[in-house]
Formats: sequence, structure tokens, C-alpha cells
Amino acid sequence: MIDVAFTRADLRPADVAVVIDVLRATSTATQALAAGYRSVLCVESVEVALTLRGPGRVLAGERRCVRPPGFDQGNSPGEAAHCRGDELVLATTNGAPAVIAAAQSAPLVLLACLLNLDAVVAALEGADVQIVCAGTDGAVALEDVYVAGRISARLRGRRTDAARVAERVARSYPTALAALAQSAGAEAARAAGLAGDIDDCAAESTLDVVGRVSAAVDGGVTVDRCRVPSFSA
Amino acid sequence: MIDVAFTRADLRPADVAVVIDVLRATSTATQALAAGYRSVLCVESVEVALTLRGPGRVLAGERRCVRPPGFDQGNSPGEAAHCRGDELVLATTNGAPAVIAAAQSAPLVLLACLLNLDAVVAALEGADVQIVCAGTDGAVALEDVYVAGRISARLRGRRTDAARVAERVARSYPTALAALAQSAGAEAARAAGLAGDIDDCAAESTLDVVGRVSAAVDGGVTVDRCRVPSFSA
Repeated sequence: MIDVAFTRADLRPADVAVVIDVLRATSTATQALAAGYRSVLCVESVEVALTLRGPGRVLAGERRCVRPPGFDQGNSPGEAAHCRGDELVLATTNGAPAVIAAAQSAPLVLLACLLNLDAVVAALEGADVQIVCAGTDGAVALEDVYVAGRISARLRGRRTDAARVAERVARSYPTALAALAQSAGAEAARAAGLAGDIDDCAAESTLDVVGRVSAAVDGGVTVDRCRVPSFSA
Repeated sequence: MIDVAFTRADLRPADVAVVIDVLRATSTATQALAAGYRSVLCVESVEVALTLRGPGRVLAGERRCVRPPGFDQGNSPGEAAHCRGDELVLATTNGAPAVIAAAQSAPLVLLACLLNLDAVVAALEGADVQIVCAGTDGAVALEDVYVAGRISARLRGRRTDAARVAERVARSYPTALAALAQSAGAEAARAAGLAGDIDDCAAESTLDVVGRVSAAVDGGVTVDRCRVPSFSA
């Protein structure tokens, strides 16, 4: 079954959970893995991230869109494209907690965005999947629903009404950028001077990398690179 | 603000909550008020309904789409169009509980469907509103999202991403019947031999009646006719 969770409140058990926070956490995490980071540690809070400082670790993330004090960089995929260490510790408001929550409802959790759209679709073929929109502060985020619909539309199999809704939304926009730009998340990004991130996150299938949760750690989960699509096997 | 709750899990405080279970509870309740019932008592369970038998009361509802044992009629708007008493006691799986839940998050709760679309829109103009999709067993129901989008698209004011999602869905279907017919709810109705109800519920703005929660009672809420749109005043 192909299903979509519009927010974390809709999480249900599935073989695979695919988490989307296209503006910007899953875009940034995917970009980091493509850039050469061995892993991305998604953590539940800025405070947890600060306790994890250590050799080879780069602290990235945001609170209200901007880089928290004491962090090395923000939550921009452009920053993550320059590999500055071994592990990116990522603390964000919605995406990182969504990845952590999804890891409690599915044995396999993948991180999706537009940058790795083709790779995600290839990894999912044939799976019982719930596509999980991170949303914003518990509310539905248009940009995540859009990406969920783009993924769902390319998967074979029965689908829930939630998946149909997402597909309808995706189909209604001429371009990914048009969808992303109309969202409240984009409005917040522009207000924070991060309009360039919207364009960066709207690029499609430029990265052949899918992040996968590989382990739970205190206060977070480790995401590493799942180069060979594992589920289609 | 114009907002949409895709399921009851997304309920939030608002000036007005507009509850939709277009297949079929809010269609049936609206039809009952238009047919001459003084009120519709939405109750939380079949068991509660059975305790409420009394003079002038007609028991209507469903479990798995069909009329429960001991009930006078099912949850079809066609049945509710024939007034057989003073009060319709309505016990349904999703819609009646959604109305009850909404009454705990908003001071004014209205019942919407396609049958009273124009009347609902007229009643809502200018309000801070959350349109609440009843959904199906906690999951998103396409048909309710469709109607939410139809309503939202006609209201002025700022809107949330959830409202944008619903509007995109609504705009993507050529007709209401096309949207309703594609839903899992319609599939269930057809399987139960109730395909005619889908057509009945897809008729637009044929009734100038909006049901409004007027009182809480043990195990439910009373809905009566709000003939004059109250919120636009």
C-alpha cells in the first residue's frame, strides 16, 4: 500500500517510511551525504547537538530558520555541499524530529527530497510505504505534500486517499519551484534571507544518494548513505 | 485564518469549526434538517443511540456503512429526506464523532456538505475558520478534502498550507462526483449497495440549510437549523 502521512500525527506502521522535509532538512541531509559526509546524525534538539561536539563533527541546523548560536552552519543544502568533516550533526525544528519519530514506526526509514527524487523512487518500488511529511510545527506543509505526491505518483500499487490527495496536489503545479514557492515555509525562508535555498531545494534528481536511518543513538538517529536501493531487491 | 484539518487529529481552536463528512453523515444531517426534523442528535455510538429511543425520535446511522440492528434507517440522505419524527438520532463511525470532537475546540460548529455548499460559504465569510474533515477511521478521506477545498476556495482571507492543499485537490477534479467516486469511501459505499448515495451526496447547493451544534448532551451534541447565517453578521 502507498500511503502519505500529512504530519507526524498520521504516522502508522509500514515496511518503509520515507520522510520529507524538502525545505530544508532532508534536502540538506541528502546533500551532505552526497558531498562526502560519512553520516548525518539527526538529533532532536539544538541542546543535544551542542553536547555532541567532537573531532570530525560539524554542527548544522536551525531554529526559526537561522543557525543557532554555537553551530558551524545553518540548515542550507548549499552549506552542506562543502564537506567539512566526517559527520554532520543536524538539529532542525521539524525534519530531524520527523526522522526520529519515523524510526519508531518503520524498520526502514529513508530521507527524501527533490534532489534525490529518482533515487528514492527506485528504492521504493514494490514496498509497503508510508511517505511522511515532516510538516511545520505540527501543521501541514504544502511543499512536503507536493514532494510526497511526486513520489507517490511514480509508485505502482494500491494507494490510500491520502496518497491520492498528495498526487492531485503535485499534479496541479507546473513546476516544483512553483509549489515550493507558494508554501508558508518558503515565506519564512524568504523572510530569513534564505530565498536561495528554495531554488536549491527545487532542483530535481541531481543526487543519486538516499539517506537511510542505520542506528538509534541517544537523542537522535544516524543516517548513512544507502547507495544501492535496498528495497527493490 | 482559513485552515483545514485533514483528520480530527489536526483539530485546533478556531472561532468556527466546519465539519465535513460528505459520505455521508453531514449530508444526511443537513438533509434531515431541510426535511423538517427539528434537530439532529449526533451521538458517539450505536449503543448511545439505542438508549435514546423515545417518542418523536428516529434512529439513523451505520456501522460499516449499513444500518445497525434496532435502527429505523441507515445513514442515507435519501432516507433522511422523509421526515418521520421530531429528532433524528444519528450514530455514525466518523462524522458524528467528528462533530462531537469539533464542539470541544470551537464555540461555533457548523455541518457542511455539498448539498449546502452555498449556504455554508455565506455563513462563513469573514470568520476565523477551521474546516474539519471527518476522515475515515482516523485516515484522510479524499471526498472530505475535496469539499473542504471547495469551501476554502470561496473564502477570503489568509490561508494555511493545509487549506492550499485542499483547494488544489478540489480544483483538480472536473466535477464533485468525479472526486467523490474516486474515494475509498465511495468504494465502500458501492460494496454495500449504496452507490445511489454517492450521487445524492454530490448534488451541490440544493439545500439552503446549515446545521449548527446548539447544545451538548450526554454522549453527543444537538444540531439544529441555523437558517440565517450567523457569522457574517
